[in-house]
Amino acid sequence: MLRVGIAGATGYTGLELCRLLQSHASVSIERLFARSHVGKTVSEVFPHAGGLSHVLNMVYSNFEPEHTDGLDVLFLALPHGTSHAFMSTLLKNDALKVIDLSADFRLNDVDVFNDTYGVSHASSSLLDRFIYGLPEFYREQLTKTRLCASPECYPTSVILGLKPLVDAGLVESAIVDAKSGASGAGRGVSLLTHFCEVDESVSSYNTGVHRHHVEMVQECGKPVFFSPHLIPMKRGILSTIYINTLRRVAHDDIRDIFQRVYQRCPFIKLRHDLRRPSTNLVSGSNNCMLTANVFDNGSRVVVVSMIDNLIKGAAGQAVQAMNIMCGFDETDGLCGIAGYV
Amino acid sequence: MLRVGIAGATGYTGLELCRLLQSHASVSIERLFARSHVGKTVSEVFPHAGGLSHVLNMVYSNFEPEHTDGLDVLFLALPHGTSHAFMSTLLKNDALKVIDLSADFRLNDVDVFNDTYGVSHASSSLLDRFIYGLPEFYREQLTKTRLCASPECYPTSVILGLKPLVDAGLVESAIVDAKSGASGAGRGVSLLTHFCEVDESVSSYNTGVHRHHVEMVQECGKPVFFSPHLIPMKRGILSTIYINTLRRVAHDDIRDIFQRVYQRCPFIKLRHDLRRPSTNLVSGSNNCMLTANVFDNGSRVVVVSMIDNLIKGAAGQAVQAMNIMCGFDETDGLCGIAGYV
Amino acid sequence: MLRVGIAGATGYTGLELCRLLQSHASVSIERLFARSHVGKTVSEVFPHAGGLSHVLNMVYSNFEPEHTDGLDVLFLALPHGTSHAFMSTLLKNDALKVIDLSADFRLNDVDVFNDTYGVSHASSSLLDRFIYGLPEFYREQLTKTRLCASPECYPTSVILGLKPLVDAGLVESAIVDAKSGASGAGRGVSLLTHFCEVDESVSSYNTGVHRHHVEMVQECGKPVFFSPHLIPMKRGILSTIYINTLRRVAHDDIRDIFQRVYQRCPFIKLRHDLRRPSTNLVSGSNNCMLTANVFDNGSRVVVVSMIDNLIKGAAGQAVQAMNIMCGFDETDGLCGIAGYV
Amino acid sequence: MLRVGIAGATGYTGLELCRLLQSHASVSIERLFARSHVGKTVSEVFPHAGGLSHVLNMVYSNFEPEHTDGLDVLFLALPHGTSHAFMSTLLKNDALKVIDLSADFRLNDVDVFNDTYGVSHASSSLLDRFIYGLPEFYREQLTKTRLCASPECYPTSVILGLKPLVDAGLVESAIVDAKSGASGAGRGVSLLTHFCEVDESVSSYNTGVHRHHVEMVQECGKPVFFSPHLIPMKRGILSTIYINTLRRVAHDDIRDIFQRVYQRCPFIKLRHDLRRPSTNLVSGSNNCMLTANVFDNGSRVVVVSMIDNLIKGAAGQAVQAMNIMCGFDETDGLCGIAGYV
Repeated sequence: MLRVGIAGATGYTGLELCRLLQSHASVSIERLFARSHVGKTVSEVFPHAGGLSHVLNMVYSNFEPEHTDGLDVLFLALPHGTSHAFMSTLLKNDALKVIDLSADFRLNDVDVFNDTYGVSHASSSLLDRFIYGLPEFYREQLTKTRLCASPECYPTSVILGLKPLVDAGLVESAIVDAKSGASGAGRGVSLLTHFCEVDESVSSYNTGVHRHHVEMVQECGKPVFFSPHLIPMKRGILSTIYINTLRRVAHDDIRDIFQRVYQRCPFIKLRHDLRRPSTNLVSGSNNCMLTANVFDNGSRVVVVSMIDNLIKGAAGQAVQAMNIMCGFDETDGLCGIAGYV
Repeated sequence: MLRVGIAGATGYTGLELCRLLQSHASVSIERLFARSHVGKTVSEVFPHAGGLSHVLNMVYSNFEPEHTDGLDVLFLALPHGTSHAFMSTLLKNDALKVIDLSADFRLNDVDVFNDTYGVSHASSSLLDRFIYGLPEFYREQLTKTRLCASPECYPTSVILGLKPLVDAGLVESAIVDAKSGASGAGRGVSLLTHFCEVDESVSSYNTGVHRHHVEMVQECGKPVFFSPHLIPMKRGILSTIYINTLRRVAHDDIRDIFQRVYQRCPFIKLRHDLRRPSTNLVSGSNNCMLTANVFDNGSRVVVVSMIDNLIKGAAGQAVQAMNIMCGFDETDGLCGIAGYV
Repeated sequence: MLRVGIAGATGYTGLELCRLLQSHASVSIERLFARSHVGKTVSEVFPHAGGLSHVLNMVYSNFEPEHTDGLDVLFLALPHGTSHAFMSTLLKNDALKVIDLSADFRLNDVDVFNDTYGVSHASSSLLDRFIYGLPEFYREQLTKTRLCASPECYPTSVILGLKPLVDAGLVESAIVDAKSGASGAGRGVSLLTHFCEVDESVSSYNTGVHRHHVEMVQECGKPVFFSPHLIPMKRGILSTIYINTLRRVAHDDIRDIFQRVYQRCPFIKLRHDLRRPSTNLVSGSNNCMLTANVFDNGSRVVVVSMIDNLIKGAAGQAVQAMNIMCGFDETDGLCGIAGYV
Repeated sequence: MLRVGIAGATGYTGLELCRLLQSHASVSIERLFARSHVGKTVSEVFPHAGGLSHVLNMVYSNFEPEHTDGLDVLFLALPHGTSHAFMSTLLKNDALKVIDLSADFRLNDVDVFNDTYGVSHASSSLLDRFIYGLPEFYREQLTKTRLCASPECYPTSVILGLKPLVDAGLVESAIVDAKSGASGAGRGVSLLTHFCEVDESVSSYNTGVHRHHVEMVQECGKPVFFSPHLIPMKRGILSTIYINTLRRVAHDDIRDIFQRVYQRCPFIKLRHDLRRPSTNLVSGSNNCMLTANVFDNGSRVVVVSMIDNLIKGAAGQAVQAMNIMCGFDETDGLCGIAGYV
């Protein structure tokens, strides 16, 4: 059994990691780290008989990067700008695989990171050792690394919908209008996530200046204008991607490209003829569902990309990367499925 | 024009007071007090062109109880346990009418207050000068006072549904199962009002120990078991009141009692034959809608009472009391109505 | 492998049965019956890559009670008043186990059924052959039957919270104030389930006259006053059960009773000290979570019972009964768990 | 008093017209037409004491275009493809002003109408007599007409945000990503508006082929790619308009253009520095709130346009047009404001 630890285990992503990993046949959750509840059991903090049943008696402890002995894999579900400070300490444990779900090791260019996150990266020499944990494009590299920087939710939805067409040489530029549920803002309290402020309203924020933008540009290498919106729902991201093509394309060409790129990707669901692409079609799963259609005589392609932001956009994708890094089947522990309603 | 001030003007109740009073033909909003935004204009804090259009250029100032000159009426929309400390200072202004929306002057018995709210009341000698601002039962007294303690939202919904039958000598005891929207918890941030914690779930809390209970017992004088629930919606309270009767009653008797008690009450809407009593029937209005029906051969009456918690349960009721205290028509400024959807 | 068929496979309960059974290690879904989509594949009707992945290529066929050869178990997720008409035909297949999720075979007294559902039962002689499929109380009988009448959602939540105290001789009468999500109304279209009519409102309906009441009375044998409410959420039932006791009880007594009755019940979660009993604590699981507390010097007990109406209140409970009827472990296929948010 | 009739009075737009007009100081609602409830009173169909208080005793009657005597203004809130068939009959009443809220008389080109709505227009000769009822651009013409074709909700939000820049010669093309609440789909029942299908999900539909598109193109005269989305909320449209400019522009230029175009428009609220443009900022009002910002060195402008789809997008705009057509103040009856929460 793979011995796993989770740091940041009480946030929404940490909880989802607990939920997924406890049902994983080859994983044993060994340690849960959570600053705010040290010494309490899971059942004291989360009185869920169901969702966390296998770990209910575990006790949250304080995370100390120098003490990770006994762990094979460590998931870091911590805020951005945290892990870069202790990563070199952590890596002294040669046997440890690290999957960092923060932004700290996703960007290749340290200056872009420093500019975007307003901190000075303390471990920039480690940046090129981390593999960007998007299995659909980095599967091969993930089999050979012990260091994974797991992608952010918005970029996951965008890159999966856009990069196949970029790589096929079809994309001039793209506008991404993304819609996300409120769990994307995390479990911290704020007036911005107060029920009465979110409910019955859709809002636009950080248009053209959202920091997830750099991750999309790094991976796609094309101008992407990114415009996120907050939707009154808990889970889900639907990204509508408006692509200006470099040359006229036909629907069948597009379909062939996606089919070819994703033919061995169990979590990519191509449904180009879907009449109402909706986030509830992927809610509770690790899937990314995609529709791509051609307009304006082939000069425009619109891709709609749907994920569950907490699963394919966070915890599920991290488990998928772990599976590959550890030689398991890519889908292990990720076929549990949520309800239709 | 009546010159009005509002303390606590940036909470949900304070905002609703601004909204209602700015459209009141006989009122001029003179001062807005709000600790957290002193020096800012309303439009800086709330970029609403509509809801607060008449006061957009007003500047929030700090509330000082010794400086209320120039005001005819002061609304206090402050947390419980605040106003009792400064009330004697405030009342040195003989010309000022005070409408306190906190619990501080609602209870007749200072010991009950101290026990319930965990503070030592600093102005207990003033308690009997305040009139409980439920116009349907204290209209006469409100015409003669300058001091009003405006009722809480839950008690408003319960007392209006229960007291007519108590006064008619029919009630042995009652169980109240109340369902409230999240705005009842106020605008403060907390995990309890985080969108992802409230949405898609109904919860029970403070069963049998909620402090609003004492207000119901004081006004009704009968054993009331109170059990509140939080509903994933913004506004509205629906209280289902299960009454054990002292003697068998007929539906027509009940109907006559309500009809008689509320015949001159413009905001009470009796709809005993409503098939689906719902909070959206009163949302956005100052109405209390009531259905009362008889079961089990007359040994049980079930009253369903619906209000908008921010209007009839808070700001609207306070304006209604002001109207009476100032000799205006009871409905002035309160006939603005919200939409069906 | 157990060969299973599902009639009514496109309703919310039918979909949930598909979802649960496709992951059940000992079950093979053989046939899906659905009148409205005969000849179409599952993937044509429900473009879900995740939730129904194992059955996507199955074709819906028309249900004919005389043609059930090849099936070991048949689930009937049909409207009330349907199965009684064809049950005798169905039972000519001696090898078939039947789990009927409608009301048709739940009531022992045919007159009560006829009165309540407004039809004349065509197979009343079969009524006493069906076992009421609440495993917590009929586990033994379920091991020996091939005919199961699976309980309704509201009664499940109420009986599990009330019957232990009834059986202990403590209950005089009870009032049940239940709150349900909208999926309880089914997938049929109606103004009553229109988003704009349900959202942002709580409503009361069928107070004292809801037909699920008879099921509670049959199983508990005590006066139960039942009052359901519709909540703006998709899943979940929270039943607040107000019990008048026959004698004064202590909290520890109550706790002991529940502990004893449910000691071998894997899906009953006793959490008497829960501060905010909420339906999201059981959402997506087959659990029933219970809190029981004593008030008014032991003369009153309040039980809060929480289930997911589509799982423990419908599909999950039916699978649980199947497990027992077929000699599987009671929890097989029912430990898949949904997310926290 | 202006004598007004409303056809289609029981749909969401019809209800909103009742609500707004009953509070209009110069209007008397004389007749309500509604096919489905002929002979019933308003209070029988809608048990709202508040929202429709002035018309509760009115009786719905059948609409007959030849019998409109006694009416000064008739609002037609009927489905598309209805009014063109009877308009010539209706106009035999020379004294009648008609405000048609359907698409039938909005398009100048009858072929575009026929293609878009799949019907053959029966009154094409009347098309050029109708004025497009967007007061911000057709105020002058509205003062002189008795025939108004009131704009659709999506086009209202888009044209108000886009046309000023088109008219200034700055727009090459635009992509509109619009997000709408469910009331835009009307009050008819359908699986598409079932609570359980809409809640907790965002969906994309009719991308690039939505028929409202033609209205935007007619009024703006530029290529507009229109992509609507359904949001789990009742009211509101937020349109994010991505504009490719014909030449580099500065933020101040944009600001000046909007300021100049809308300087005498009481319902246009320019808030270019809004941090989180949200539909709840306009909910319940007749306002259109706009933010416009410049990106990519002036080659791109993003406008966010927010309206309440039932008010500025339907009933409120129709009343605004009526005010102008009848010589009232443009804001009469439209300053009632809904709550913050």
